[in-house]
Amino acid sequence: MDWFLTLVELIGTVAFSVSGAATAISKRMDIFGVCILGIITAVGGGIIRDLMIGSTPPQCFQNPLYLVVACLSAAVFFLPFIRKPLQRRQAGFDRVLFTMDTLGLAAFTVVGIQAALQVNSRFGWLLLLCEGVLTGTGGGVLRDLLAGDMPYIFRKHVYATASLAGAVLYLLLHQLAGMHIATVASMLLICLIRVLSARFRWNLPHANDGAS
Amino acid sequence: MDWFLTLVELIGTVAFSVSGAATAISKRMDIFGVCILGIITAVGGGIIRDLMIGSTPPQCFQNPLYLVVACLSAAVFFLPFIRKPLQRRQAGFDRVLFTMDTLGLAAFTVVGIQAALQVNSRFGWLLLLCEGVLTGTGGGVLRDLLAGDMPYIFRKHVYATASLAGAVLYLLLHQLAGMHIATVASMLLICLIRVLSARFRWNLPHANDGAS
Amino acid sequence: MDWFLTLVELIGTVAFSVSGAATAISKRMDIFGVCILGIITAVGGGIIRDLMIGSTPPQCFQNPLYLVVACLSAAVFFLPFIRKPLQRRQAGFDRVLFTMDTLGLAAFTVVGIQAALQVNSRFGWLLLLCEGVLTGTGGGVLRDLLAGDMPYIFRKHVYATASLAGAVLYLLLHQLAGMHIATVASMLLICLIRVLSARFRWNLPHANDGAS
Repeated sequence: MDWFLTLVELIGTVAFSVSGAATAISKRMDIFGVCILGIITAVGGGIIRDLMIGSTPPQCFQNPLYLVVACLSAAVFFLPFIRKPLQRRQAGFDRVLFTMDTLGLAAFTVVGIQAALQVNSRFGWLLLLCEGVLTGTGGGVLRDLLAGDMPYIFRKHVYATASLAGAVLYLLLHQLAGMHIATVASMLLICLIRVLSARFRWNLPHANDGAS
Repeated sequence: MDWFLTLVELIGTVAFSVSGAATAISKRMDIFGVCILGIITAVGGGIIRDLMIGSTPPQCFQNPLYLVVACLSAAVFFLPFIRKPLQRRQAGFDRVLFTMDTLGLAAFTVVGIQAALQVNSRFGWLLLLCEGVLTGTGGGVLRDLLAGDMPYIFRKHVYATASLAGAVLYLLLHQLAGMHIATVASMLLICLIRVLSARFRWNLPHANDGAS
Repeated sequence: MDWFLTLVELIGTVAFSVSGAATAISKRMDIFGVCILGIITAVGGGIIRDLMIGSTPPQCFQNPLYLVVACLSAAVFFLPFIRKPLQRRQAGFDRVLFTMDTLGLAAFTVVGIQAALQVNSRFGWLLLLCEGVLTGTGGGVLRDLLAGDMPYIFRKHVYATASLAGAVLYLLLHQLAGMHIATVASMLLICLIRVLSARFRWNLPHANDGAS
């Protein structure tokens, strides 16, 4: 069973690392900066999660796999023949960032809940939901904060909410249908919400318009 | 006795949540961003405090009360008939932010010390003072950092110092006069220092003037 | 033996505090802001390290020495006859920041590993390296983040890498030659790498040039 969770975690690690690398490249950082921001984005959410549940030292400091995968993903994305075609068109670049960030959000929301359950299977639902959202959004918040951008969770309308919806679905399905189905369904839901909200630019009430 | 501490904590939660919501509105965030920044501002200081004393998982992930109150406070403040009159005049807006931030600072400084004492009544005075200041100022630092502003603790002359003064007074009175009197006196002192420093724009030596 | 580690830690504390104070002064903060940023820069890396290895409450909240030294260092640096000659020339200011930041990076990288070893002598090499780099770079990242700058680790080409190189050297020499020699050699290596990279402006591949 553990191979499944490891696979989901690796997907999230690669996706978030590339999103961090893409952000670093758009800020004209050199290869070191690109790798460092990739690594922080990829492991940041998991470190926050481990600190919150008192599971120290954080997992990524005990198994080199995640740091190595994150560093390599960022470095590979920096290769000119991969990066250059994207840099030519800002739209292509934005799409990579959006796709990778969404995939990472979906994977890490599920991983966050699972990891918390493995530490203590009797954690309450509130803690599990918070762990899912924190693990899912934490890496991206660190990425944007360190790169000097307003974090995605404030700019993109349905971001933390998509993670929360996925976390709720996971908890509902987890007992009924098992971990595998719950994971796939939850990740699909998060990706779907993100894609739909981006496609239709869902308008939520803003402070500068009349709606409430 | 616990109802008293809970009451003070709820006052701080509502006040800091509204200060976060006001900051989010001034950055033209939508309702989701407003609620998220309100929640982070309200529970951020407490999470930092719980991590520092190794009291994991943090309290706000175990009892939904604080997250719900913070979310509702921010959402209510976002209602047009509450927010609109304030938005018309920047001065009114600034006053809400100042008032709520000061109230939150006062309440959470005291709550921080009390919570640390409940975890271990033999913690040293240095740790208790640090916990008070960290809990009091932590949420506001996160709020300003995430909103892309220079944190209050660097902009407002007497901010961390007000919290520290209140924390010292609390430790002095706590044994002599009991928790209730210490709490009220400490909160009053913090509010008084903040109001006086804002009213008289106390000038402290700056790096660009001649005084030392 | 402990006096040696304490000495290295005090060197790092003074150096990082002055680097924080210098940053605060360049942002025109008043004396309170200067002391606060000095303190956060000096103790921030150590707090992050202690949280990561579950050694709570962090050391700097238990022994007033480090907070007092950090506060005094920042306050002394703020004195006009020390600060004014530096403020006249931006180059002199930058050199102080560079020197102090490098010294702090070198000292805290070593201190981070030593402190982790004292908590648990069987920690793995990956954790020890991470602790060294986190302790060495953490304070500076907090300093730059709170001051609204792009962190040094992204701007300065060989920064986290210098810390990592020093951490590796320390682990290699530690068993063979003892703590003292390992400490001195590791600190010298970090300073050397930083000075050389600044002197020769080592060019690493950038996202906006052709190299990979």
